[in-house]
Amino acid sequence: MSADDSIQTTDLHRTIALARERKRARLTEIGPWKYLQFVGKVRTIPEGTVIFDEHMIWGYPKIGRILQLDTGIRTQFQQPFWIEEKIDGYNVRIFRHQDAILALTRRGYICPFTTDRLDDLIDRRLFAEHPELVLCAEVAGPGNPYCEAHPPFVPEDVQLFAFDIMRLDQPGFLPYRDKIQLLDAYRLPGVPRFGRYQASDLEKIRGLLLKLDREGREGIVFKEDSPEDRRVKYVTGSTNISDIWANEGSVQQLPPEYFMHRILRLTLFMEEHGLEPTADIHRELGRSLIETITKAVEQYRRHHKVFHTFRCRFRQRANAELMMQAMHHLLGENQVRQHSLTQEGDYYRLEFEKILPRTTGLLNHLLSGGIAYD
Amino acid sequence: MSADDSIQTTDLHRTIALARERKRARLTEIGPWKYLQFVGKVRTIPEGTVIFDEHMIWGYPKIGRILQLDTGIRTQFQQPFWIEEKIDGYNVRIFRHQDAILALTRRGYICPFTTDRLDDLIDRRLFAEHPELVLCAEVAGPGNPYCEAHPPFVPEDVQLFAFDIMRLDQPGFLPYRDKIQLLDAYRLPGVPRFGRYQASDLEKIRGLLLKLDREGREGIVFKEDSPEDRRVKYVTGSTNISDIWANEGSVQQLPPEYFMHRILRLTLFMEEHGLEPTADIHRELGRSLIETITKAVEQYRRHHKVFHTFRCRFRQRANAELMMQAMHHLLGENQVRQHSLTQEGDYYRLEFEKILPRTTGLLNHLLSGGIAYD
Repeated sequence: MSADDSIQTTDLHRTIALARERKRARLTEIGPWKYLQFVGKVRTIPEGTVIFDEHMIWGYPKIGRILQLDTGIRTQFQQPFWIEEKIDGYNVRIFRHQDAILALTRRGYICPFTTDRLDDLIDRRLFAEHPELVLCAEVAGPGNPYCEAHPPFVPEDVQLFAFDIMRLDQPGFLPYRDKIQLLDAYRLPGVPRFGRYQASDLEKIRGLLLKLDREGREGIVFKEDSPEDRRVKYVTGSTNISDIWANEGSVQQLPPEYFMHRILRLTLFMEEHGLEPTADIHRELGRSLIETITKAVEQYRRHHKVFHTFRCRFRQRANAELMMQAMHHLLGENQVRQHSLTQEGDYYRLEFEKILPRTTGLLNHLLSGGIAYD
Repeated sequence: MSADDSIQTTDLHRTIALARERKRARLTEIGPWKYLQFVGKVRTIPEGTVIFDEHMIWGYPKIGRILQLDTGIRTQFQQPFWIEEKIDGYNVRIFRHQDAILALTRRGYICPFTTDRLDDLIDRRLFAEHPELVLCAEVAGPGNPYCEAHPPFVPEDVQLFAFDIMRLDQPGFLPYRDKIQLLDAYRLPGVPRFGRYQASDLEKIRGLLLKLDREGREGIVFKEDSPEDRRVKYVTGSTNISDIWANEGSVQQLPPEYFMHRILRLTLFMEEHGLEPTADIHRELGRSLIETITKAVEQYRRHHKVFHTFRCRFRQRANAELMMQAMHHLLGENQVRQHSLTQEGDYYRLEFEKILPRTTGLLNHLLSGGIAYD
C-alpha cells in the first residue's frame, strides 16, 4: 500500500470507533504499557495493528503462498522481483515509544522477551536517529519462547533477521533499496538476500530452492520491484517435514489442515522439481507423523498432560517475570507453567511449559476408553 | 432402543411435521418409488429414516468407536458382549414394500444397484414369510458403486454380510440369538461372528484383533448381550493405511480429519498392542499419503479433473440407468459421468466416474499459480 492509500484522519477515527464497537480493538496492558490493540481486521486495518498514544503501528500484512513455482511467478508478477530468504521464527515489529524501544508480536502483543534482548539483537542507533521507523524482522533460534522449529543455521539462543522497514502511522514498507541502505548503514542483520530476478529466470530460482531444500531451510519470499510491492512466498519440500516434527504432540491442537497442507506442499514441490519420492522421504514423512503422536501419548501417560517445553534467556529478571505474566494472561493461568528461573552468568534462564489443552483432553478421553464418533 | 421407547403415534406425527418444517424430512422420488426421507436427525428419529406409505423404516444408528481396546471395553461394557467382524463396504437396510424388496442406503436413498442384485445376494424367502422384517447388512467388494475400499476376502463383484434385523416401524434390533436363528433358517450370509466375551477376555480379543490386522481386515463391532444392546466398534491398525490408499485423490475432498484421525488410530493401535512401528510402516504411511496426492496431480494434468472410476454389474439395464439418474440427481449433473453400459453375459456392466470437485478446484487453482493463504 502506498501513502496515497493512507486513510484520512476522520476516516481513521471512524474505523477505530467501529473496531472498538465490534470488539476488534481493545485496550491491552503489558507491564507499564497500555495501548489499543487490533485483535481482528477492520476495514483496511489489519489484525496486529496497535495504537500507542498518538502513534499507530500498522499490522504486518499476510503474505500469500504459491505452491507451484513456475506458473506461480508467471501469474503473480508482471515485473522483476527481489528474492529474500524466509526464516522460520516469529515475526516482530520494533519501534520507539518515548524513551523505550519495544518489540511487538505479529498479533500486536508487546513481547517482553524480544524487548529484553534487543541489545543482543540490533543496534538501537537506528531509532535514535530515525524515531519514525518501524523495523520488521523474524527472530529465530532454539532459545525462543514461541515456536518449536528453528533454522539449522541458528544453533543456539536466538538471532534477528530484518526484512522490512515501515514508518509509524503508515501502512506499507519503505522501497527495497532504501531498506537495504538503512540496514547497511546501521549494520542491522538482515535476512539473506538472493538478488533481483524475473519470471524467465525460473531455472536459476529453481536451483536456489533446491539448494535451500537440501540445506533444510524454509524457503523464499518474492517482493516485486514496483510501487505495488506485490509479495508471495514459496517454501521448500523439506521444511514441511520439519514442521511436522516441530509440532510434536500437536496432532489435535493444530487444525488437521496444518498437517495435510504440509503433505500437499511437500508432494507438489517434489512433483514440480522432478524429485522422485524416495523410500527415505516416505519413511521420514510416516515417521514424523507417527512419532509426533507416540511422543504425545508417552508424555500423557507419564505426566497426564501434553506440553511443549521452552527455554530462553533474559537480560533482566523482571522481563522474564513479565513474560510469564503475559503468557498466563494470554493463554490462561493453567496452560503455562514456569519450571525454573535461574541466574546464568549475565542472564536469567527461564524454563517453562505450554500445555496443549486439546491434545491433552483428547488423549485423556480416548486413553480412558471414551467413545469417538466420526 | 426397546419397544418401550417407541414413540406414541401422535408424538410421531408431531415429529414428522416438525421435520418437514425444518426441511429435515422431504419427499424423495427414485424410479417408481416416492417416499419421505429424513435427511437429518429430528428428536429421536435418526437421519436415513424413511416412510413408505404406512410403514416406517428407522435409520441405522451411528456406532461410536473406541481407540483404546483395554480401557474401552472395561469402560463401555458392564456385561458380556458378542463380537462380530466389521466389514468395509456400504450399509443397507433391505425390506419389503408391497410386492417389491428394496434396499436403502444409510442415508435413506433407495439403492438401484443393491435392489437389482438382491437375487445374487440373499434368499428373498425371509421377506415372503416375514414381511415385517428389515435386514441390515454391509455390501462389500470391488464391484460396488460407492466405496473404493473392499475387504481382501471379496476379490470380485460384491457380497452381502448381514449383521442385524429390525422390524418395520420400530427402532432397535431383534435380540442377537433371534437374529442368528433367522439368518441360519434362511441361509442368509452373515458377517463373521467371533463369539461371546467379557472385558476380562482382553488377551483373547487382542489376539483376534492382531490376526485380523495381519490379514488386512477392518476390525470388529461389540454388541452387549443385554436389553440395552450397547455397541461400539474398534478397528485394526492396518485398515487405516488401506483407508488412505482407498481415498486416492481425495486429499481436499474429504475433511482433513479423515486422514489425521486414521494416523492417530494407527498409532494408538500399535502403541496399545506393542507393535513397534517399523520402517516398513513408516514408509507405507508416508507412501500412501504422498502417492494419493501424486496420483490426483497426474490425473488432473491429464484430464483437467480428479475422479474415481467405478465398475459394477446389474441384472437389468433399467436399474443401471436408474442408478446413473439417481446419482446425477444426488451429486449434480456434471459430477458423475457414465463411461459405458454394455451387456456381458447375463449382466449389464456399468462403468462411470465420480468427479471430486473440491480436489479438482484446488489443484486447478494451485497448479495454475494461484495464491493460498494459511
